[in-house]
Amino acid sequence: MSKLLIAQSGGPTVAINATLAGILDAASNNPRVDKIYGGVNGIEGVLQERFIDLTDLAVDREQLKILWQTPAAALGSCRWKLSSEEEDEGAYEKFMEIMKKHDIAYFIYIGGNDSMDTVDKLASYCRRKNIDDFYIIGAPKTIDNDLVGTDHCPGFGSAAKYIATTMAELERDCHVYTTKTVTVVEIMGRNAGWLTAASALSRIHGAKGPDLIYLCERPFELETCAKKVEELLKSQDSVLIALSEGVKDKNGQYISGSLAPQGVDAFGHVQVAGAAMVTADYLKNRLGCKTRAIAFNLMQRASACLASKKDLEESFQLGSVAAKAVIGAESGKMASIKRLDKEKYTVCYELVDVSEVANRERKVPLDMITESGDDVKQEMVDYLLPLIQGEPRILYENGLPLHIHLYE
Amino acid sequence: MSKLLIAQSGGPTVAINATLAGILDAASNNPRVDKIYGGVNGIEGVLQERFIDLTDLAVDREQLKILWQTPAAALGSCRWKLSSEEEDEGAYEKFMEIMKKHDIAYFIYIGGNDSMDTVDKLASYCRRKNIDDFYIIGAPKTIDNDLVGTDHCPGFGSAAKYIATTMAELERDCHVYTTKTVTVVEIMGRNAGWLTAASALSRIHGAKGPDLIYLCERPFELETCAKKVEELLKSQDSVLIALSEGVKDKNGQYISGSLAPQGVDAFGHVQVAGAAMVTADYLKNRLGCKTRAIAFNLMQRASACLASKKDLEESFQLGSVAAKAVIGAESGKMASIKRLDKEKYTVCYELVDVSEVANRERKVPLDMITESGDDVKQEMVDYLLPLIQGEPRILYENGLPLHIHLYE
Repeated sequence: MSKLLIAQSGGPTVAINATLAGILDAASNNPRVDKIYGGVNGIEGVLQERFIDLTDLAVDREQLKILWQTPAAALGSCRWKLSSEEEDEGAYEKFMEIMKKHDIAYFIYIGGNDSMDTVDKLASYCRRKNIDDFYIIGAPKTIDNDLVGTDHCPGFGSAAKYIATTMAELERDCHVYTTKTVTVVEIMGRNAGWLTAASALSRIHGAKGPDLIYLCERPFELETCAKKVEELLKSQDSVLIALSEGVKDKNGQYISGSLAPQGVDAFGHVQVAGAAMVTADYLKNRLGCKTRAIAFNLMQRASACLASKKDLEESFQLGSVAAKAVIGAESGKMASIKRLDKEKYTVCYELVDVSEVANRERKVPLDMITESGDDVKQEMVDYLLPLIQGEPRILYENGLPLHIHLYE
Repeated sequence: MSKLLIAQSGGPTVAINATLAGILDAASNNPRVDKIYGGVNGIEGVLQERFIDLTDLAVDREQLKILWQTPAAALGSCRWKLSSEEEDEGAYEKFMEIMKKHDIAYFIYIGGNDSMDTVDKLASYCRRKNIDDFYIIGAPKTIDNDLVGTDHCPGFGSAAKYIATTMAELERDCHVYTTKTVTVVEIMGRNAGWLTAASALSRIHGAKGPDLIYLCERPFELETCAKKVEELLKSQDSVLIALSEGVKDKNGQYISGSLAPQGVDAFGHVQVAGAAMVTADYLKNRLGCKTRAIAFNLMQRASACLASKKDLEESFQLGSVAAKAVIGAESGKMASIKRLDKEKYTVCYELVDVSEVANRERKVPLDMITESGDDVKQEMVDYLLPLIQGEPRILYENGLPLHIHLYE
């Protein structure tokens, strides 16, 4: 009998706690596990022995349901990356000492590619040191959908559903006036445009959706955009644009920084405007029309009431797969989703070598973007649509959704 | 037998179409009405005879349900205000000619206080001209909750629920990291802080909610705010602030404009930063911590999937009341909500003179704000809580909510 430790890392999603719930559910039934710990604030907190006991929670169906619907990492997170062994072998030794001290044989780290790097490093260390009583597995999550080794990432489907739903709602809102207006919506994604692509799903029921969609995989030219908008405004009053926060010009410069030299505040400090604000300002000055910049900001990764049921279910399953794998003595792997049938959308879960995932980034293939560079092709819609299916039944009390609070 | 005309005006809400559905439902059963028209783009479109026939829609239960859940004004909107009779009597004459031409005896205008001004002017004109075969009634809506003559405004409860829910989610998101961070959230309301006050509801289940809440009814001083935040950061990592977009300093200057002189773009054009961005920048420079500005922007008035069921039901009822009143030969009134019992929250619907509503603004009473000026009192929570109760069952298809499209 040994202990299982779970920690979460990287940016929050609305599905990362569903994975945690899946792990708890699978581990609570396993005779090899007698206690389940949560490490608070990721690997950083683990190295400070900030543990909370989740053993009782794991068998509390009602609380697991609330955990399942709580956005953001219930165990907290960190942005801290384990240094290489050469740089800081002490951290590795300390980590293993803590595991030994608390009788922890199994560790599941839920996170993105930085976290998978930590899993890879720890697993490699154990291999080299012939440590054969400690196992570590990664469970993926990221709204950016930029992990390799998995068809898509837990958390992404829910963020995509938020973006598709909200874009459809914004289209309705922007449609009501007859004043010529351009609305530029900034969507998360510094290097990968998957989330911005999801704005195209807002057209599913025949709605117009965004008129222009710019992913960060292609150069973004303000003047080209202005010409397109000018043309569109000849026949319509409202133009809606979806824009990756990370769009760059042809010289590789982020659009979001381009006003910085003049954009200083009253103290002379540089202000960095977002890509949507820069674009909206440019279009206002260039075309003389009303413009508006909207950033989906944290809402796109935190709106749990708008989550995709499919995403939450898959995230739960991945947690279950990760738990069974690590307790079954697998190590240095990441649980992942494989799409078996594109037409009917069926998936299976498998394990991939975490070394193949760590520090890599999966961008949108250029052939999923239209030639004109301002929209996505049908195959992107086909890829995305199954991921936003279904609406979870959220538990409300007093008009507000219930959230779990595992630590102060 | 006569025709009924309905038009919508002012800023969109997620409940304005529920009121339209309520009118259609009530009018479809009335023997005095043989046709129902929708005027596209408010009074502006009415004067251009831009009518669509809603008679069939009024008896289509399925489409009414979709109308009920569609955000923004399904009939379009306008920001156009009817001039006074002295300035432009021709507009009044033209309006009445159009009504006569189309055999329209009943007109319901759904809108805020500008729209109630139009209702008031038209009703007064009819009275003075002894026109006794035309009746006009106002139906209220505004997310700002700033109309007098009604306990609260249709659309407000849903926006309040969005704000409470999203604030609770942001609190969870901001809680995950150990880096000192201040998040400033800008909420709609140029002159009235009701929506910002609704952020306090996010504490209902024992959550921390926003640490500081600043309504536009009280002067907002950046330095006072900075001192509060500095103190809070000594004992916590994340500070969450809710701020009305219309907060002003003690000299009555909007905070949102205070960076304008230096905040120019590459073309020398003035950039106006929002109140949250100005505050976040100030705090970053003053305290040296990470800050983030978030604007709920159009999402707070368009997120129909997060609507308050109570709000939608009341909005529907108000439409029904307005329809019955106008067909019953009432004119120059607005349908309104009266709260009968504060403890159990029961309401009744009544008619108030529209002249008492037009062009007036109901701000948050100062005695609902704490002495320190950075929070609301319990009586505000008691007033708001009944308005966000219940979640509507939204019809989805293919993972996205269904919306109605009444015109191109």
